[in-house]
Amino acid sequence: MWSVLHRRQFAIIAGLMQTVFILLFAKYVKYIDPLDDSRRVYSGTDYPLFQDVHLMIFVGFGFLMAFLKRYGFSAVSVNLLLSAFVIQFAMLLRGFLTVAFNETGLFSIGIPEMISAESSCAAVLITMGVLLGRLTPVQFLLLAFFETLLNVVVEHFVFNYLHVNDSGRSLSVHTFGAYFGLAAALVGHKKNVMEMDEHGGIHHSDLFSMIGTLLLWVFFPSFNAAIQEPEDARHRAIMNTYLAMASSTVTTFMISSCVDDLGRFNMIHIQSSTLAGGVAIGSAANAVLYPYHAVIVGVVSAILSVIGHAWISPRLERTFHLFDTCGVHNLHGMPGILAGLLSIGFAYFYEPESYGKTLYHIYPYWVGGELNGDRDNVSQAQYQAIGLVVILVTAIIGGLLTGCILKIKVWNQVDDPDFPHGEMNYYAQSDVNFLSKYKHAQEQQRLREREQMHEIY
Amino acid sequence: MWSVLHRRQFAIIAGLMQTVFILLFAKYVKYIDPLDDSRRVYSGTDYPLFQDVHLMIFVGFGFLMAFLKRYGFSAVSVNLLLSAFVIQFAMLLRGFLTVAFNETGLFSIGIPEMISAESSCAAVLITMGVLLGRLTPVQFLLLAFFETLLNVVVEHFVFNYLHVNDSGRSLSVHTFGAYFGLAAALVGHKKNVMEMDEHGGIHHSDLFSMIGTLLLWVFFPSFNAAIQEPEDARHRAIMNTYLAMASSTVTTFMISSCVDDLGRFNMIHIQSSTLAGGVAIGSAANAVLYPYHAVIVGVVSAILSVIGHAWISPRLERTFHLFDTCGVHNLHGMPGILAGLLSIGFAYFYEPESYGKTLYHIYPYWVGGELNGDRDNVSQAQYQAIGLVVILVTAIIGGLLTGCILKIKVWNQVDDPDFPHGEMNYYAQSDVNFLSKYKHAQEQQRLREREQMHEIY
Amino acid sequence: MWSVLHRRQFAIIAGLMQTVFILLFAKYVKYIDPLDDSRRVYSGTDYPLFQDVHLMIFVGFGFLMAFLKRYGFSAVSVNLLLSAFVIQFAMLLRGFLTVAFNETGLFSIGIPEMISAESSCAAVLITMGVLLGRLTPVQFLLLAFFETLLNVVVEHFVFNYLHVNDSGRSLSVHTFGAYFGLAAALVGHKKNVMEMDEHGGIHHSDLFSMIGTLLLWVFFPSFNAAIQEPEDARHRAIMNTYLAMASSTVTTFMISSCVDDLGRFNMIHIQSSTLAGGVAIGSAANAVLYPYHAVIVGVVSAILSVIGHAWISPRLERTFHLFDTCGVHNLHGMPGILAGLLSIGFAYFYEPESYGKTLYHIYPYWVGGELNGDRDNVSQAQYQAIGLVVILVTAIIGGLLTGCILKIKVWNQVDDPDFPHGEMNYYAQSDVNFLSKYKHAQEQQRLREREQMHEIY
Repeated sequence: MWSVLHRRQFAIIAGLMQTVFILLFAKYVKYIDPLDDSRRVYSGTDYPLFQDVHLMIFVGFGFLMAFLKRYGFSAVSVNLLLSAFVIQFAMLLRGFLTVAFNETGLFSIGIPEMISAESSCAAVLITMGVLLGRLTPVQFLLLAFFETLLNVVVEHFVFNYLHVNDSGRSLSVHTFGAYFGLAAALVGHKKNVMEMDEHGGIHHSDLFSMIGTLLLWVFFPSFNAAIQEPEDARHRAIMNTYLAMASSTVTTFMISSCVDDLGRFNMIHIQSSTLAGGVAIGSAANAVLYPYHAVIVGVVSAILSVIGHAWISPRLERTFHLFDTCGVHNLHGMPGILAGLLSIGFAYFYEPESYGKTLYHIYPYWVGGELNGDRDNVSQAQYQAIGLVVILVTAIIGGLLTGCILKIKVWNQVDDPDFPHGEMNYYAQSDVNFLSKYKHAQEQQRLREREQMHEIY
Repeated sequence: MWSVLHRRQFAIIAGLMQTVFILLFAKYVKYIDPLDDSRRVYSGTDYPLFQDVHLMIFVGFGFLMAFLKRYGFSAVSVNLLLSAFVIQFAMLLRGFLTVAFNETGLFSIGIPEMISAESSCAAVLITMGVLLGRLTPVQFLLLAFFETLLNVVVEHFVFNYLHVNDSGRSLSVHTFGAYFGLAAALVGHKKNVMEMDEHGGIHHSDLFSMIGTLLLWVFFPSFNAAIQEPEDARHRAIMNTYLAMASSTVTTFMISSCVDDLGRFNMIHIQSSTLAGGVAIGSAANAVLYPYHAVIVGVVSAILSVIGHAWISPRLERTFHLFDTCGVHNLHGMPGILAGLLSIGFAYFYEPESYGKTLYHIYPYWVGGELNGDRDNVSQAQYQAIGLVVILVTAIIGGLLTGCILKIKVWNQVDDPDFPHGEMNYYAQSDVNFLSKYKHAQEQQRLREREQMHEIY
Repeated sequence: MWSVLHRRQFAIIAGLMQTVFILLFAKYVKYIDPLDDSRRVYSGTDYPLFQDVHLMIFVGFGFLMAFLKRYGFSAVSVNLLLSAFVIQFAMLLRGFLTVAFNETGLFSIGIPEMISAESSCAAVLITMGVLLGRLTPVQFLLLAFFETLLNVVVEHFVFNYLHVNDSGRSLSVHTFGAYFGLAAALVGHKKNVMEMDEHGGIHHSDLFSMIGTLLLWVFFPSFNAAIQEPEDARHRAIMNTYLAMASSTVTTFMISSCVDDLGRFNMIHIQSSTLAGGVAIGSAANAVLYPYHAVIVGVVSAILSVIGHAWISPRLERTFHLFDTCGVHNLHGMPGILAGLLSIGFAYFYEPESYGKTLYHIYPYWVGGELNGDRDNVSQAQYQAIGLVVILVTAIIGGLLTGCILKIKVWNQVDDPDFPHGEMNYYAQSDVNFLSKYKHAQEQQRLREREQMHEIY
């Protein structure tokens, strides 16, 4: 009985949640009315940007995490599962927080809601990167549930109450996801998967991982620009991200060869620090006015990220037994905090006149706008700082709590290979839990042979 | 002489066909006249959607079929060959069926014609998935020729005479391609490639296959929406597909772990059933009005597809010796029929007023439109049913005939490895038939050495 | 001291250049002023096309070169490094040549400047394809510096002084990059990497390479159309490239099986000659008026390219010891020259009236346009020929000079494995120089153990 519950746990929980989703979609969600012209139905520029983000989430993040030999397939698959789960859940949650839902009891969804839903996936996938190889699929599903719940609520508070500018969601996605995961890892899951996995990253796995890195690299400008309007804010978000990524890539190679005694390039740095520029520029990507500021942000973030990989992560492992499978802290965590700090500085130092009317899109509560706000550069900078603190605190508390919940013995757990263990559960999260095509064919073949034997005798 | 013909058969047939294409293009095809404003020359929203479909056809389908160890390279390459062949052929065929050609003896091509040509590729590639590993390149080329010929004519009849709504072409592409291939496989080609291929799908091949799965997953909304207009129909096609795929993915993981005794996830399911939602919503993607309908369609299609993999396919193999290399029946066949059935139901039950003026884009022969049609919800539903039957019948008859033609001994055949065979033809369809770069370098090296020897002596 | 300089050489040079970039960006570069409406800020159609090109450069070219077993990771990584370097450098160089910079001492950048910068990357990556496996990262960086410098200046001269039509940049990118690389290879670097690398291209590497090929294949129409306007010129560029690639692919398979004694398909041809159509149509992609012309161009270019692989490259290797690792001469070199010749023919033979007002976008110096030009079809054809000669001559001279510079012993060199060599420098360009994740984890583990030992004793 107990063992059946263990084996069917995933199916039960996933089935339950999907059923609830159907009921909620049926009761509260509608498409935009084609007869009503008050809302932009579809924009030629929004859907291509959505598709760029879509590729990042489903292919980019998936393959980025495929570098562990024994977890390659499971990384890509669990990535797909969690994303498909979160896009439904996040759409529902965000809808419940809209004005339209408060007023009419219904809310409508469209391309912009799809883009927001995908960004919630990113937060969960970043957290997954910290814990990769140490949770079972059922634990990952629960993690996605709790994290998305908290993330959407916190984001709503930071965006719509604190009116913080976080254009590329470096705070609400990158910083939140990273520290949520690190806090969850601190509670339990104290294992180094790289050591367990003797033949860890091998040649081809590293190439698969590069597919992920490069897709994220290529589409990062779209990620930071997707929800921006009007045109000049979107244009700046694209250009700033582009320049920051270019300079952070050159700098990554430079610093990577510096920190190695033999001057070699470290693949970990190439696969993650090259992306740090996009994270660090994220929060203020729509606001940065001078190209060279973006270039400098890229350089600084890459230095920070490589130093994190080389010196900070090993220290965290030794001192706090805090293992971070994909080095998320150095790619999303610290560059995310840098993004928050930069967004304070840019709000404070730039001349607000430079933005023209776009000012009220970037900082909606600035004095003189439609919301009758009262912000100037000092108070906006203060609120940017409050936003960063709120994100950090909620992510860490949420991560600690979720980590505790996931440790409850009722959920399937990854057994420690050094302890006696049940056959089924061992490596439950690794590729052994995924039935390969060839093995499936073998089993089918054996089944058929047994049946034929039966016919003969 | 005979053996030369066998070796050069592919070159002769391909050369002949390409020559005919050139002549036909020269005589009948023109570009849109830039001085004539009557036709939309280029739309900012069409080309990005075309590129999404383009990626699906050439990269998505190619890598989806790359999971067999010995056929990995050949799957991707033959995919490229057939697609490049079909886009030219389908453009010509469709042009010959246009009103403009009937009136002027010339027809013009543009972005929409490119999108339609790519969808014809999809039908051929789905059929290829059934027969993968059991046909030689020359047989695949002939298959593509016959199938495209029939497919374009049938599609023309179903779309322009029966006025059936098949927005994502689930009937004319997915259902047609699947049953055409299954019928062709029934005639001959009774072999299980998975068993022949001892080291079948291995770790990395499964990851390559996931590249294909994920690209198809990501761009399926574009496939179902590419030829839709106006904006609200395209918007619904995108959103419905998106939601159906999300729910079908979560359901696939759920059911996959249910049908396995140990609760494992089956990679075959993950690589194909996650896509079933996009196929099943396809025919009516522009018509479904409520988000939760799309979510339910996704759930049902995934259940159907996983059950197909787990119980129906093995039975077909044992009872009819019907082998389906890529499990096409469960991904495109049954979900395609489901799409047809759903398109009947949606035509019947939805209030036509809900669509506003878009009604005549979705059901062009509805009473009151420009075509002076006489349809109401009953008669449109009847025609949707007739469309499904026409597609199924023509696909099966066409597949059987093509299967017979391909069995003619004059074409290069894949020899049975258990029988005595000529050196050349064995594994003629596998990667052995593709000269790898390294082997090529070796042969060049040996050639050079022999030449040098010659110089010396 | 000397050895430290050798180990830190890359970091010093890269750091220096990135610092200079920051200073130049700070002093001379600005974004478009959002308050100024005189320039198109952002266009819905430009950014998606940019993203297609972006994917080609960073993922397409990278994986195309990943077929060598020992250089797979380094090919993808150095591709990333050089591209990130060149996009900054090319943006600056092009800016210094603008009218705006001459007049105001400042220049502004936007999406079109990003597209141009990416095309400069393509030239460098093509050159890298010739020399792959024979240069160290530091040499590649210097190569990128000198080649970009020359390429941007020559392109400026050919485009803005000679007013040559080179829409897909087949002359300024493909031809220039190929012959620059071949000239550099002629000076030194006389090694055949394929022979050195015993286990050269293997199964999976060929599949990775196909990712590159297919991405380039899919997005080639975008590459040739990205900088075209108005709509009808862009439309023609897309359609012509599409048709030329389809026919060149079918022809590649045909000729490839012809030139092999056993009728096999050669993977080298599939991975490169299928793309030749896009290169050969490139220069005149916006000008070709009849679809069948594009189809014929595709056929001819594929024949040329396969013959190049089969007979010309081996002869170049034997006679001139000119090794071309990726067969760039057959993909970019000869088809590039063909593109130049075709652009002469199309300028001469087509009726200029057919283009309507677009004529002055295609040939800006034609008589009657805004520039008060004096060209007719004869003189335009002459200038197209002059453009081809200028590109070829400057590429070859520049390549020879750069080859000489790179041979200077002060730079890190790839040692000949047959000669005695220092530990560090051997295979300095291969994957050995890239510290893999697993090896990194091992080193970290050993470090930790040593520290613990220290604590104990």
